[in-house]
Amino acid sequence: MSQVVIDLNADLGEGFGRWRLTDDEQLLSVVTSANVACGFHAGDAATMRRVCELAAQRGVRIGAQVSYRDLAGFGRRAMDVPTDELSAEVAYQIGALEVFARAAGTRVAYVKPHGALYNRVVRDEEQAGAVVEGVLLAGGRLPVLGLPGSRLLDVAEKAGLPTVTEAFADRAYTDEGTLVPRTRAGAVITSGDEVVARSLDLAANGSVASLTGRRVDVGARSLCLHGDTPGAVELAREVRARLEADGVDVRAFA
Amino acid sequence: MSQVVIDLNADLGEGFGRWRLTDDEQLLSVVTSANVACGFHAGDAATMRRVCELAAQRGVRIGAQVSYRDLAGFGRRAMDVPTDELSAEVAYQIGALEVFARAAGTRVAYVKPHGALYNRVVRDEEQAGAVVEGVLLAGGRLPVLGLPGSRLLDVAEKAGLPTVTEAFADRAYTDEGTLVPRTRAGAVITSGDEVVARSLDLAANGSVASLTGRRVDVGARSLCLHGDTPGAVELAREVRARLEADGVDVRAFA
Amino acid sequence: MSQVVIDLNADLGEGFGRWRLTDDEQLLSVVTSANVACGFHAGDAATMRRVCELAAQRGVRIGAQVSYRDLAGFGRRAMDVPTDELSAEVAYQIGALEVFARAAGTRVAYVKPHGALYNRVVRDEEQAGAVVEGVLLAGGRLPVLGLPGSRLLDVAEKAGLPTVTEAFADRAYTDEGTLVPRTRAGAVITSGDEVVARSLDLAANGSVASLTGRRVDVGARSLCLHGDTPGAVELAREVRARLEADGVDVRAFA
Amino acid sequence: MSQVVIDLNADLGEGFGRWRLTDDEQLLSVVTSANVACGFHAGDAATMRRVCELAAQRGVRIGAQVSYRDLAGFGRRAMDVPTDELSAEVAYQIGALEVFARAAGTRVAYVKPHGALYNRVVRDEEQAGAVVEGVLLAGGRLPVLGLPGSRLLDVAEKAGLPTVTEAFADRAYTDEGTLVPRTRAGAVITSGDEVVARSLDLAANGSVASLTGRRVDVGARSLCLHGDTPGAVELAREVRARLEADGVDVRAFA
Repeated sequence: MSQVVIDLNADLGEGFGRWRLTDDEQLLSVVTSANVACGFHAGDAATMRRVCELAAQRGVRIGAQVSYRDLAGFGRRAMDVPTDELSAEVAYQIGALEVFARAAGTRVAYVKPHGALYNRVVRDEEQAGAVVEGVLLAGGRLPVLGLPGSRLLDVAEKAGLPTVTEAFADRAYTDEGTLVPRTRAGAVITSGDEVVARSLDLAANGSVASLTGRRVDVGARSLCLHGDTPGAVELAREVRARLEADGVDVRAFA
Repeated sequence: MSQVVIDLNADLGEGFGRWRLTDDEQLLSVVTSANVACGFHAGDAATMRRVCELAAQRGVRIGAQVSYRDLAGFGRRAMDVPTDELSAEVAYQIGALEVFARAAGTRVAYVKPHGALYNRVVRDEEQAGAVVEGVLLAGGRLPVLGLPGSRLLDVAEKAGLPTVTEAFADRAYTDEGTLVPRTRAGAVITSGDEVVARSLDLAANGSVASLTGRRVDVGARSLCLHGDTPGAVELAREVRARLEADGVDVRAFA
Repeated sequence: MSQVVIDLNADLGEGFGRWRLTDDEQLLSVVTSANVACGFHAGDAATMRRVCELAAQRGVRIGAQVSYRDLAGFGRRAMDVPTDELSAEVAYQIGALEVFARAAGTRVAYVKPHGALYNRVVRDEEQAGAVVEGVLLAGGRLPVLGLPGSRLLDVAEKAGLPTVTEAFADRAYTDEGTLVPRTRAGAVITSGDEVVARSLDLAANGSVASLTGRRVDVGARSLCLHGDTPGAVELAREVRARLEADGVDVRAFA
Repeated sequence: MSQVVIDLNADLGEGFGRWRLTDDEQLLSVVTSANVACGFHAGDAATMRRVCELAAQRGVRIGAQVSYRDLAGFGRRAMDVPTDELSAEVAYQIGALEVFARAAGTRVAYVKPHGALYNRVVRDEEQAGAVVEGVLLAGGRLPVLGLPGSRLLDVAEKAGLPTVTEAFADRAYTDEGTLVPRTRAGAVITSGDEVVARSLDLAANGSVASLTGRRVDVGARSLCLHGDTPGAVELAREVRARLEADGVDVRAFA
């Protein structure tokens, strides 16, 4: 029987100037893929450089975490950006990050939308198309990381881009396999034990119990860990340790 | 006798969102090198894309016009930016522009600092070093365009980067060959005829009359034309026409 | 018979730093109410100060043109801003403008949302409520200028704020008296003669012909003139001259 | 014998959007004057509102902490801002904060420059003049808080503004009574006990030991406490407790 393989990704470099958010150094010792903020919702040039250097040293894959241009809202506010602006902004962010990845001896290896843009392109065909056009503009046919069943991954596939699905061990799922909106009770799973158990479930079986108790298939190749809450790094470390103890091969997606 | 060769450069893409400044389309039919704003003092992603496409179509060389991060001040206010931040910011801007140059089938071919940063690195060794480090970070050993005798070109040369000197036909020079500060009377030459005559002089002889009437050698391989004042495009066109009529080979620097 | 009275309003101070958009000086000799940009979609502190001084000198009423925080998009992109942030941002903008109105010897006399926020609060009850809360926070119970029938004016009235309706002589109306979306043919009226004729109609009768030719009542107390297109100032001047020639009393709303 | 009176001030509301820096709630239970960030180096509208409400509830005086426009650099990078822009920007910030102070039932009671601007106006007469002009523009003849002997306080006094001097218990002083630059060894005092002792000294005697051991008179009416380092709040609390135990009347300056 072949070994189970899973990628662990997390958002990094999400400070800005004087402000810090994530413990980049610690997270880079846990994850296999780093979604690096590119300056539009967070992330300044010096931070991007440092995160890329650390990631390269530790063999962590670098991804461009692209966002709406919205520092004041941390990219969490949906915006009706015209598609030609959005695609150019996506390409701009990838290009800016690429400089630091190259300088560190590696390359940007994938693209993942952030926050409100991530949620918007689950259903919005136009903005999904704009993100994909931005990835194509940036060259290199980079894989796109996103939610299974999202318009983004559909459009990316049609455009011939590799796609990678991800799941969230700390988020509840509906019976249809979509994320329970944060505004509903039980949407976020706060018990560390439960997060660990669901991580193992998702990695081993590609499925997880929905909010109503049904098993739903989410078939993810990557698990998204969060690094911006107290205790998050310890929990991420625990998830990785338990996955490896269970024989899962924690490794960046191919 | 070998033919005189001169490059003509101008700042382009200096709008931002709803605002326009330069007539990019017209200027691109005159200059041989386009200093494209990269989003820090001006320039948004969609504009950068469009300018790169136009420049590529017309065979105009693309340069990264890097700046302090200062949209509100158009990059015209000197800032005491720590060198590690400044070098990362320079690299960030080059990387962002590179995406659009590549998408248009070409490459970023040189780097020129803008506004207050341009003036600062004439004398400030530290910031000159930071700009050069940024260019090195971005890779590709790009030529640096600047003022003859500036610290920037000194430091760039020591770092092994190609350097290109430029002169201003619409600015008065001191007897020492430096620019007369804008705050002094006579600093800016407003007569179109005089600008044309000085352009010819600078291209053919590499020298020009100083404010006191002495001939000063400025030995520039590129002439900087301005595009942000009324009549600027017509004057630029006139300069180019007269240079060519006089047998000068107007061509991007090698 | 009582004389017809109409207010003329226009957006002013919509430059930013190096960039200019509207001919503020000229527009201030035509309009009776100035919607001054407050720094969120356009407008910097020095421009706000200058526009307030000019408006005060000419007896033009000053209004706060409040917007989403979006310089890159000129406030034209709808944003899902949480209501507590939006109300605070509205108050912030009013307060910033108030300083310059006071320094010029006058006061901020009304509030008008800009661009995407203006359109959003026609139907979005939540954001309309946030704008009204922002106006209340700012104190002084300022009148709110908006579209007849909009949620904004409903909510403002319920909160006890004075409301002022406005109409657009250069925009087509549906049979229901709403604006024809800009994406539809015929939405914008480009003929100067027609704009003048419709201005007279709107001022004298409070009604205008819809896109299908029916008369629709829009009952506006203010006409919005545009100042950001070529020939706009001349057209605005013509509208005012014709209104006055027809005996209309062009005056800021009470 | 009259009782010794001292004011305690600290920077508050220095987060931005998603990012937090200071523990505003805790600091507001210690200080008597809150220097509230106004959005130029830190501080968003919603945070400004909340801090003003908390400060008003606890009877803490609200001051406008005005800064260069530089979120990316946290206002810590000196900028050559033209004086007309700088004065307008200072007024803009005061006006924006005033809205939230009023809504909370109080008023902005003083102005203190932040970071690089604070340091610049110690010696730079032009920028000191611009800050003072901004305070005058904002109206109300607000007191200016600054360093004894600074150009800022000189210019403010000449303009008829009240001035308030402050001292730093955690910074070393030269024999001339100026702050030892942060780049020199010993510039920052890290021992909590020493900070407490110096606070008592400064409050009771208006003087403190310089780096060389001489007593220097700094005669401050306010002590500046820092809130952005680990343990800062506890230390601030300790300083206040010890001042009060020693019979000092900790109270906002008159």
